[in-house]
Amino acid sequence: MEKKIITLATLWTRSFSASLDEVLLRDGGRGRRMKIDHPEAAAVVPFVAEEEILMVRQYRYALGKETLEIPAGKLDPGETPEGCARRELLEETGYDAGKLTFLYTYAPAIGYSNERIHIFSARNLRKTEKKIDEREISSVKPYRLKRLREMMDKGLLVDGKTLLALFFAGLGRG
Amino acid sequence: MEKKIITLATLWTRSFSASLDEVLLRDGGRGRRMKIDHPEAAAVVPFVAEEEILMVRQYRYALGKETLEIPAGKLDPGETPEGCARRELLEETGYDAGKLTFLYTYAPAIGYSNERIHIFSARNLRKTEKKIDEREISSVKPYRLKRLREMMDKGLLVDGKTLLALFFAGLGRG
Repeated sequence: MEKKIITLATLWTRSFSASLDEVLLRDGGRGRRMKIDHPEAAAVVPFVAEEEILMVRQYRYALGKETLEIPAGKLDPGETPEGCARRELLEETGYDAGKLTFLYTYAPAIGYSNERIHIFSARNLRKTEKKIDEREISSVKPYRLKRLREMMDKGLLVDGKTLLALFFAGLGRG
Repeated sequence: MEKKIITLATLWTRSFSASLDEVLLRDGGRGRRMKIDHPEAAAVVPFVAEEEILMVRQYRYALGKETLEIPAGKLDPGETPEGCARRELLEETGYDAGKLTFLYTYAPAIGYSNERIHIFSARNLRKTEKKIDEREISSVKPYRLKRLREMMDKGLLVDGKTLLALFFAGLGRG
């Protein structure tokens, strides 16, 4: 293992932080490690039909462009992963989740982040009157699984949680 | 899009940085964004036999524990993704890659990182005399695909790049 000697500096956003730590390495030497301290997150594959998934477009500052993704977001304090998946689906698409099924929990960036993402699928969706959060979401559109597979064959889906969630939801088996 | 107004602070490791930027949001307001500026990386699914993959154990400071992963690492300056996959496989397992096949490029943590990981499979591996880098790697062991599938069914594989690479290498189709 590696043991923290001291935190040299920390940067904060409203919901997570990045720290640079000086650590004791396994060979007895010293090194520096960056650590993003991040809340857990939830992501949901929303089936609006047997072969059709709701996808959102969102601008991602770190990439400097928009990406096509499944709905997802950070857990609020005290919130369950399932509660978060349901809330994010409603906020980002205007749909109520109906039946949620847990698929997997994974860590997206173990080299520098403690984030863990809980993946769900949602079925029996129900459209509500809820307005979509337009500060975050550029557009919401249904995509047929066949089209998503074609986009994947061309390397057009880049978001890790979306790719992994589609696999866990059975996309690769078509 | 979101436009940077100013970088408020940056933390540096030897190979990447974390910056806190003040940005102009799409609605005209101001916000803060964390951005990990990270080199590209390569990860490789090394088939030592038709149904067997070399996996490494590595301590991950951000998670505070060891994880079971496929070999992977950051591209050195000027290095190609393929060259990096080949070097990391050699450094972490002592095996020469033989035939490398490109599978996919994805972004693991689009909420705060510009990292992109290039996934390869490797076949026709050849054991060399090269010593494994024991500062990074705790152990190297072959795992049968069947066993990896069972571990996945129990949620025991947590590393995103490993899970996604196993899917792209065909694990889900068994």
